[in-house]
Amino acid sequence: MIELRKDIISSRWVIINDTRDFQLDVPQPMSKEAVGACPFCVGNENLIPSPISCYDKNGAKINVMDKDWHIKVIPNNKPILTIEGNIIRKAEGIYDKMKGVGAHEIFIEAQEHDDSHLYDNKQNLVACILAMQDRINDLRNDTRLEYILIYRNHGAAYGETVTHPHFQLVALPFIPKAVADEISISKKHYEFRERCLFCDVIDQELATKTRIVMETENFVSFIPFASRFPFETWIFPKEHTFDYRVLNDKNKIEDLAEVVIGVTRKLFKALGRNISYTLLLHSYPLKENKMDHFHWHIEVIPRLAKYSGFDLVSGMYVNPTVPEESAKFLREA
Amino acid sequence: MIELRKDIISSRWVIINDTRDFQLDVPQPMSKEAVGACPFCVGNENLIPSPISCYDKNGAKINVMDKDWHIKVIPNNKPILTIEGNIIRKAEGIYDKMKGVGAHEIFIEAQEHDDSHLYDNKQNLVACILAMQDRINDLRNDTRLEYILIYRNHGAAYGETVTHPHFQLVALPFIPKAVADEISISKKHYEFRERCLFCDVIDQELATKTRIVMETENFVSFIPFASRFPFETWIFPKEHTFDYRVLNDKNKIEDLAEVVIGVTRKLFKALGRNISYTLLLHSYPLKENKMDHFHWHIEVIPRLAKYSGFDLVSGMYVNPTVPEESAKFLREA
Repeated sequence: MIELRKDIISSRWVIINDTRDFQLDVPQPMSKEAVGACPFCVGNENLIPSPISCYDKNGAKINVMDKDWHIKVIPNNKPILTIEGNIIRKAEGIYDKMKGVGAHEIFIEAQEHDDSHLYDNKQNLVACILAMQDRINDLRNDTRLEYILIYRNHGAAYGETVTHPHFQLVALPFIPKAVADEISISKKHYEFRERCLFCDVIDQELATKTRIVMETENFVSFIPFASRFPFETWIFPKEHTFDYRVLNDKNKIEDLAEVVIGVTRKLFKALGRNISYTLLLHSYPLKENKMDHFHWHIEVIPRLAKYSGFDLVSGMYVNPTVPEESAKFLREA
Repeated sequence: MIELRKDIISSRWVIINDTRDFQLDVPQPMSKEAVGACPFCVGNENLIPSPISCYDKNGAKINVMDKDWHIKVIPNNKPILTIEGNIIRKAEGIYDKMKGVGAHEIFIEAQEHDDSHLYDNKQNLVACILAMQDRINDLRNDTRLEYILIYRNHGAAYGETVTHPHFQLVALPFIPKAVADEISISKKHYEFRERCLFCDVIDQELATKTRIVMETENFVSFIPFASRFPFETWIFPKEHTFDYRVLNDKNKIEDLAEVVIGVTRKLFKALGRNISYTLLLHSYPLKENKMDHFHWHIEVIPRLAKYSGFDLVSGMYVNPTVPEESAKFLREA
């Protein structure tokens, strides 16, 4: 199949071409010896900054000195952005710049270094989701911030340096262009049709069924029609919600944990336990109070081949797999 | 330095943060044995499709059977898009798709497999530039096509499979989003100021001087203010021109060859001969006849560290090098 497909959310044409070779390149994780002492393991607390907050197995906040933590949040000791100072916006001739202000936090997902149990343990992910909501609620009060990215980079291909399971949170004083584009395109759709673009996509995927990976009562995951990367998988709440934090129904949170664990397990089963993936929450801009045109979601993007980024610099994406076939493969895994 | 800088051409914020580690990862080129018979070498013509056209050392078209070719253009035997058929645009529910129609050609840059002499040989690159102009002129008559990408992916990190020096040309029935964004942002600038945005950038770079890598009579190369990647270098004609093909002055073409060779030599000298880079021509959409707001240019993007593409999926770019320092390093190389 050689077909051009347009991603309706980003307005990006993608070349679906399975006549091209697809060279699997799955780097092995680093050995324990190569990694050295794990800074996130119990006993090595001297290697990391003091915790910001800790949570118990139900996701309830506990004292940061409590040894029985299930989720521990610490500041990144080499942050992308620093929390101190005011955002000073300046011109440099015709260019714009500002001070590198923001937050960069690590969610240590478990005391255990080995992550295997996390792919079975729904309860642990529920606690982590609640911890994230708590941190977002706190950071949202900081008026310097515009957007919060939450992600897990798993595996050697995503440049993971610490293999102890962890999420990262980056709070930014700007809206990343990938998200800003999604928002502006879905806004145009809303203005024209008075419907959420993402809801339309979900409806079509549920009706077509061929690209569905997994479905639960409240969530659906599918391989997008014009996916850029092999086995790229999206997860959406079925009901329209722009705000990830409004997820306060315990059943729904458990349902989310189930689909996230389900998708990653399927990826491991279908493609091998050593694959790398990034899991990225697309949330809404912090300063919005209501967005009828935005629908929060999660993108899971495996990295199965060596990646040069040529697509990024050229704007030309070639996907050597057919989304419907990949979805079938994952569905049956 | 931790600073946020906005790229004026893409409207993208980039985090410049040199407190972050920058792990060099320069894969070795494949050995001759691992590569096997080179399909672009003389004597192996049975491995490749028949040539589309050939050019002599002055870039003049010669008979495709002439053994004394300097540039040979062949169709890619595993093309991204196929040249046959009509573009049939269809809906699939709310989605859009079309037939994968386009062209994918290879410019074999020399009979010699070893590319060393190309980084000294201005005359050879001049012939190649003329050959590209000839191919663009031909493909421009094909009304199905909207855009032509020309690029050289050099080195193992860019997934180069044939090390014999070659450029690639891909003709697309759509405008890649990276280019479409550049065009729409520069159009807004033009509407507001009645000046070319790229000309403004060039003026500022020439005045500031700190980010200049190299300058000739007609061209300037610099590291952009908000560069996404270490040692990303842009090359612009100083004079406003939207169309790469209008470069018909022999002195100007030689000048372009000089700056392209100069920049790549500086990258090799500063960073090592095994680095990978992509060189990409940003040309104008084929169906435009005049564009006051667009200015053709070349992007040279080295790939020095393992690249996961997390920036692409998140929209958050972190550059661990300071553009002014990188430019000084290259200037002095």
